[in-house]
Amino acid sequence: MNKGDILAAATSGYKGKAAKELQRAAVSIGDNITITKGGKAYEGTLFPRSEYADDTHVILKLKNGYNLGIELTEGTVIEFLSKGKKPEFVSPPHPKEKPELPRVSIISTGGTIASRVDYRTGAVQPALTAEDLYCFVPELSNIARIKATVLSSEFSENIGPKHWREMADTAFKELKNGSEGIVFSHGTDTMGYTAAALSFALRDLPCPVVFVGSQRSSDRPSSDAASNLMAATAIAAKAPFAEVVVAMHETNSDEYISIHRGTRVRKCHTSRRDAFKTVDSKPLGRIDLKNLDLNVLDETIRLRDQSRAPHVNANFEEKVALLKFHPNFNPEIIDWFKEKKYRGIVFEGTGLGHVNRACFEPIKRALDSGLLVGMTSQCIWGMIDMNVYETGRDLLAMGVMPLGDMISETAYVKMMWVLGQTTDIVKAKGMMATNMAGEFTQRRPL
Amino acid sequence: MNKGDILAAATSGYKGKAAKELQRAAVSIGDNITITKGGKAYEGTLFPRSEYADDTHVILKLKNGYNLGIELTEGTVIEFLSKGKKPEFVSPPHPKEKPELPRVSIISTGGTIASRVDYRTGAVQPALTAEDLYCFVPELSNIARIKATVLSSEFSENIGPKHWREMADTAFKELKNGSEGIVFSHGTDTMGYTAAALSFALRDLPCPVVFVGSQRSSDRPSSDAASNLMAATAIAAKAPFAEVVVAMHETNSDEYISIHRGTRVRKCHTSRRDAFKTVDSKPLGRIDLKNLDLNVLDETIRLRDQSRAPHVNANFEEKVALLKFHPNFNPEIIDWFKEKKYRGIVFEGTGLGHVNRACFEPIKRALDSGLLVGMTSQCIWGMIDMNVYETGRDLLAMGVMPLGDMISETAYVKMMWVLGQTTDIVKAKGMMATNMAGEFTQRRPL
Repeated sequence: MNKGDILAAATSGYKGKAAKELQRAAVSIGDNITITKGGKAYEGTLFPRSEYADDTHVILKLKNGYNLGIELTEGTVIEFLSKGKKPEFVSPPHPKEKPELPRVSIISTGGTIASRVDYRTGAVQPALTAEDLYCFVPELSNIARIKATVLSSEFSENIGPKHWREMADTAFKELKNGSEGIVFSHGTDTMGYTAAALSFALRDLPCPVVFVGSQRSSDRPSSDAASNLMAATAIAAKAPFAEVVVAMHETNSDEYISIHRGTRVRKCHTSRRDAFKTVDSKPLGRIDLKNLDLNVLDETIRLRDQSRAPHVNANFEEKVALLKFHPNFNPEIIDWFKEKKYRGIVFEGTGLGHVNRACFEPIKRALDSGLLVGMTSQCIWGMIDMNVYETGRDLLAMGVMPLGDMISETAYVKMMWVLGQTTDIVKAKGMMATNMAGEFTQRRPL
Repeated sequence: MNKGDILAAATSGYKGKAAKELQRAAVSIGDNITITKGGKAYEGTLFPRSEYADDTHVILKLKNGYNLGIELTEGTVIEFLSKGKKPEFVSPPHPKEKPELPRVSIISTGGTIASRVDYRTGAVQPALTAEDLYCFVPELSNIARIKATVLSSEFSENIGPKHWREMADTAFKELKNGSEGIVFSHGTDTMGYTAAALSFALRDLPCPVVFVGSQRSSDRPSSDAASNLMAATAIAAKAPFAEVVVAMHETNSDEYISIHRGTRVRKCHTSRRDAFKTVDSKPLGRIDLKNLDLNVLDETIRLRDQSRAPHVNANFEEKVALLKFHPNFNPEIIDWFKEKKYRGIVFEGTGLGHVNRACFEPIKRALDSGLLVGMTSQCIWGMIDMNVYETGRDLLAMGVMPLGDMISETAYVKMMWVLGQTTDIVKAKGMMATNMAGEFTQRRPL
């Protein structure tokens, strides 16, 4: 959603009966109003509605932060209380150019970080520019010489391979122009997928590429936006590694920020500030928020080397499916993807890597048509082992690829990337089995 | 897979070139053999192959427990070493009838528990009868008067709504016949789904129904089969609650067995003995393996009452889909399910309950056709909240149901059950939003 869309959303809204009633009461979106119905009075801010809404409900943002939909029935009274206030960014301090500091590029893609809730409308405004940033976290000017770029303003559920390509190209350009570390601000919903995508797309990185988001917007007391962004900038500026990582709160306190490898990280909670976890391994490192001291906890890191020449392979095959198997799974879906000319399927199987017998024939047909079929586990933690039970052995014998302990989200992104690099299925299988960006832990299958 | 199938698998196998070479060397499946190739000798047990296998590889189970496929090329030599040994159950001790002990029914459905690996073939034989059980865990006769029933011998990835119905009916019959506690032995892969299904299907339970499995088969030193089964039997015999639960190791040590509510439990590791976790809450209780003391940790339990008359509502609508949303998700799949006359879809959205804009129109079409569409989160932990961002609000406005902190697997099973009880969409929505079997934690949405 770009800024224009946000503004449109803020003024658009009611139709039919609801529009008429609001007009009659002379109230606009963002106003503080009272709605009295059945003897009860509800006080709050008038919210806009989506285009799919009916024309009989009015949405109030209550003082406790919740939204309430009130149906306009006979006798419902709407009253104006006061005008709402638009959020404003204060003027940024002017950072002195400090030539001794490393150059860090902050590229914003949207999301909650560095955005503010417009309390008139409840809309979150992703509005990150260099000036906003300094205003938001003035400490950044002591860590690095910042160059900020707005690439997009998307909620991350809308981000996909097209954006991954743009991000990879933008990072590459920044590196070519002398950037010594990259920060991507990103919505948290799909940040793990994007971090995995860029882990494969950006080859021979000279320096860190750090993804950062926030679970609470910057104008809430418990926001993690400023601390995460400060830590991410410090990692980009001085970390000794050249990896794609995610930097987010280690716990619910503000002590440490965890550094997760982009291919091993997963959002494991809907709302906690420490939602991001490294699966099946310890994080790559952590940064102490008191003094921005950085500790690396993984000896397998690729070291930073500013003289290394990066390149971009950001071609992702879009005809790849990620399928979670479950009881009563409809196996016809496998044929459907085959008929849609899909080139690969990653299963989230059960346990050690299983699907039921009803899937065997469709999987065999998919493999016979040249699809690449890989197996991961919906358990999330632990290694696939398809040699223990007959189901696994049968699937292996057909040609299903066991994907070790790669998490399903990374396996999916990797298969898209691999099939974007080659049409040779044997080569693709070889690439899938090779540890290219830390996507397998050291506890790898035989 | 029934026993006949297992035996067939154990003797079936090689074809073409591989069959000829094995015949020439006069070796059979299960024999210990040596294969020499390129100067290297591989010693192990000859494994059977699946019907999908090629005819040039021979599979050895090596002494380290791994299986190795060796391609038969020019100069490969196969030699017989010795005959393998079939596993045998020793004769069971005769348990004395102890009328003071409660009557517990153990109903086996298959899986690793109470099965043995046939080292001749590597096949796991699910072979649980009353006699096998006493032989396997003689302590059971001190806990309860056991009646054991073999319902099926399935790896749990093959279990679905048909089996759920059979299980519910069997449990009901056992209760009618005076059982004071039920144990289901079950493969671990889909045990969480089945426990959720029976949580809804068995109404007004008088006593506990305990699901139990094992992560390692009973003939391995680290097996959890005996301890889990003993704990499950003790829970069925004496727990003060009347709930459907899962009993599995609390940690990797043999100290405690956790008791998880059937609607809140998830297999979160492919191989660890403590793979099962209660999501977003503490377990319902735990049992101390030293003395089988049982502690209940949740005050919301429904109490045991042998006079309560249970009944079965085991009708599950099979036309329900569980879809994990991800970047590059193909929204056409939503229309496909609509065209297949599906009645419900549960999404595993991102974060607080989101999918991308490309899904909006297909979801709207599905809703317009009368499908029930619910939202859960792939984060697994934490509550859905679709009021925070515009994406969530738009989906809510369309009519997508937010499913609180119900885990996606339970939400899927519940929607199948709800749509199996009613064709009235308003009633179905009401049932989905009602806490019927502890599927919502106490931290529920407004």
